[in-house]
Amino acid sequence: MEIDRAPRYGKGIGWGFLVALIVQKFGGSSVANAERIKRVAKRVVETKRKGHRLVVVVSALGDTTDELLDLVGSITDRPSEREMDMLLATGEQVSVALLAMAIHRLGEKAISFTGPQVGIITDPTHTKARILDINTARIEQALRDGNIVIVAGFQGKTVAEEITTLGRGGSDLTAVALGKALRAKHCEIYTDVNGIYTADPRVVPSARKLDQVSYDEIMELASLGVQVMQSRSIEVGKKFNVPIYVRSSLNHSRGTLITKENPKMEEVVVSGVALNLDEAKITIFRVPDRPGVAARIFKVIADHGINVDMIIQNKTQTNKTDISFTVAKSELESAMEAVRQASQSVRGGPVTCDENIAKVSIVGVGMRSHTGVASKMFGALAKNKINIDMISTSEIKVSCVVPGNKGKHAVRAIHQEFGLGKK
Amino acid sequence: MEIDRAPRYGKGIGWGFLVALIVQKFGGSSVANAERIKRVAKRVVETKRKGHRLVVVVSALGDTTDELLDLVGSITDRPSEREMDMLLATGEQVSVALLAMAIHRLGEKAISFTGPQVGIITDPTHTKARILDINTARIEQALRDGNIVIVAGFQGKTVAEEITTLGRGGSDLTAVALGKALRAKHCEIYTDVNGIYTADPRVVPSARKLDQVSYDEIMELASLGVQVMQSRSIEVGKKFNVPIYVRSSLNHSRGTLITKENPKMEEVVVSGVALNLDEAKITIFRVPDRPGVAARIFKVIADHGINVDMIIQNKTQTNKTDISFTVAKSELESAMEAVRQASQSVRGGPVTCDENIAKVSIVGVGMRSHTGVASKMFGALAKNKINIDMISTSEIKVSCVVPGNKGKHAVRAIHQEFGLGKK
Repeated sequence: MEIDRAPRYGKGIGWGFLVALIVQKFGGSSVANAERIKRVAKRVVETKRKGHRLVVVVSALGDTTDELLDLVGSITDRPSEREMDMLLATGEQVSVALLAMAIHRLGEKAISFTGPQVGIITDPTHTKARILDINTARIEQALRDGNIVIVAGFQGKTVAEEITTLGRGGSDLTAVALGKALRAKHCEIYTDVNGIYTADPRVVPSARKLDQVSYDEIMELASLGVQVMQSRSIEVGKKFNVPIYVRSSLNHSRGTLITKENPKMEEVVVSGVALNLDEAKITIFRVPDRPGVAARIFKVIADHGINVDMIIQNKTQTNKTDISFTVAKSELESAMEAVRQASQSVRGGPVTCDENIAKVSIVGVGMRSHTGVASKMFGALAKNKINIDMISTSEIKVSCVVPGNKGKHAVRAIHQEFGLGKK
Repeated sequence: MEIDRAPRYGKGIGWGFLVALIVQKFGGSSVANAERIKRVAKRVVETKRKGHRLVVVVSALGDTTDELLDLVGSITDRPSEREMDMLLATGEQVSVALLAMAIHRLGEKAISFTGPQVGIITDPTHTKARILDINTARIEQALRDGNIVIVAGFQGKTVAEEITTLGRGGSDLTAVALGKALRAKHCEIYTDVNGIYTADPRVVPSARKLDQVSYDEIMELASLGVQVMQSRSIEVGKKFNVPIYVRSSLNHSRGTLITKENPKMEEVVVSGVALNLDEAKITIFRVPDRPGVAARIFKVIADHGINVDMIIQNKTQTNKTDISFTVAKSELESAMEAVRQASQSVRGGPVTCDENIAKVSIVGVGMRSHTGVASKMFGALAKNKINIDMISTSEIKVSCVVPGNKGKHAVRAIHQEFGLGKK
């Protein structure tokens, strides 16, 4: 298995390169205050003393970003994105300095760096920059000097020395990209849960922690609203085959390994069941059934910056069709306005919406090699008298929209049908 | 007069270089919250619209530094100086970004930079680095692009790209050093007072604001405890002849110009009277009167990191002498311990201290060319029955230690004697 391979060797010299390098990432809640920073320091030092070389990526302290955004809010409602990056990048710089101090106090060498200092080079797309390159020389030197290297997540600089930030989940991306650039044995992403589960344990008490899961499955889960890691980080992990552990910062449980697909994974048909209660369904009635009409409607919606998820078209009468789709509830109001415009412009009928829906999904790479997965899911819902409103599938996913108040029931039924619970 | 000279010309091209460049510096209290940041933005934009090119240096938001230091305090009591710089440099980065946003809102172009970004190169003495060089190319380009350029005060980087801070008063130093490097017409240091006064108006109601004062006088005043600007900034201003205005951020009063000496200044014998209530007097009795004994005593005190101000030696009996000197009250306790050690080691007598003292000083470059200044001061004190305990003089200063409860009375008497009040 990937993470059991022998350590790779760098181009440098010295014993340092015979020791496995690990990248650990701690999020904002793990470093929300002085006590938690000290706890992270203790954990980091434990890992170091096991003989690992260590690069630690840290997010901004708990509420820092919100406090800075409050200040911005009292100054302007249209802040420049460049200046936002300038502002928000300070949050991680505070965390890394404090963590370095906390590690020093425990008697270990540590040195903190900003993203720009360690040569995380990005494109100039402020607030959501993409990493172009990482010049690892400075980190490697600091590691050779025996340091725990602490790097500010979420940030980088352009070739013109402008400070940039990487957008939502940016610190995860920093960790995985550093994992790749430094040829780390693996990355460890610390959270407040023990790993990734077959379902949300608050909904399904018998939900089981997964030992491993594939990059593709995690990306599907992320797109279904399961908050594990941001898709871009997983993409990078997949592209460069960086093994990623999702672990708890509160205990020493092994966590869940996100890795490339392997034969063992394919034996498992369904890895998990996801529930999303944050979508609403919009229906446009009696749209003229002509080529180009759907395209025109969805262009108007896209032009309003609204993301559409599932789409279903159902021909109801000659030359007319009903079109339904789901959007995030948070975007429902602006979506309805856009959709009414769109419907008028194509001489469609009235528009309705339904907020009382739940999207239930199953994900698993095993679906590629197993048949009858979808029908088994539908059967579980039928047995429980749960009506299916919309269906959408991908290679490794089946999603059903059901009545909102049946969502949790549906998840439990499916979880049991596929035998996902604790043995 | 210096500030009326024609604007200097840069090596660049374009109309920009025909327009006077001004450096403005706003301290932490001027940018303590969103409202004040907006007020500074308004003021900056006014100056810009008068047709000036403008570089603005900003300190950290009011309480930011204290809040960060609180966090450090709960993590360690011996923070690494490198990590302190990493941490504290974030304060100014927040201010510059917010000020840029506030200026944008008023419809003017502005761009913020950190010290490292604009090439403020320092030595590697963390927490009190000295500026070695400033590479102004980036600022000049931003000015040519029509921007108000906002630079984070207090910070720089080493040639090895380590973040450094400049210590107390560092933002003033950034402003004056940028004034020099950019060949600014002058610097404006904004404070919450209208300028520099002949005496503290809270002590002497008739105190008058000075229109101009020399670098040397300000340095003497700073050493006497008058909180105007940090001495290093003034030294740089003097060395490179950068005119500095100390002005209020609350009104449009012209402020006080700190500039090189000119004949008009020499006509004024005394520029101001300073009062310092923060010193205490220590006396060592019956010290053996042999060469090297005083040196040994003050070496012990210096080795304890204690600064000694006025020193007086008074031979009281054959082969024995009493030595008195003043130290800051805040250092009195550790000073007494050091002095007792020192006295024992030279077989001196007992050590006493007196916290009830006031140091009253007059400062003025005119003293160089006028005689009888000191005796006029002593006369004023005598007339008011104020006993003089210690006297010390420099080329442009006379200081007297008087009983602590007579300090304010002494200042008023001297202020009147030299006719310094409002006409």
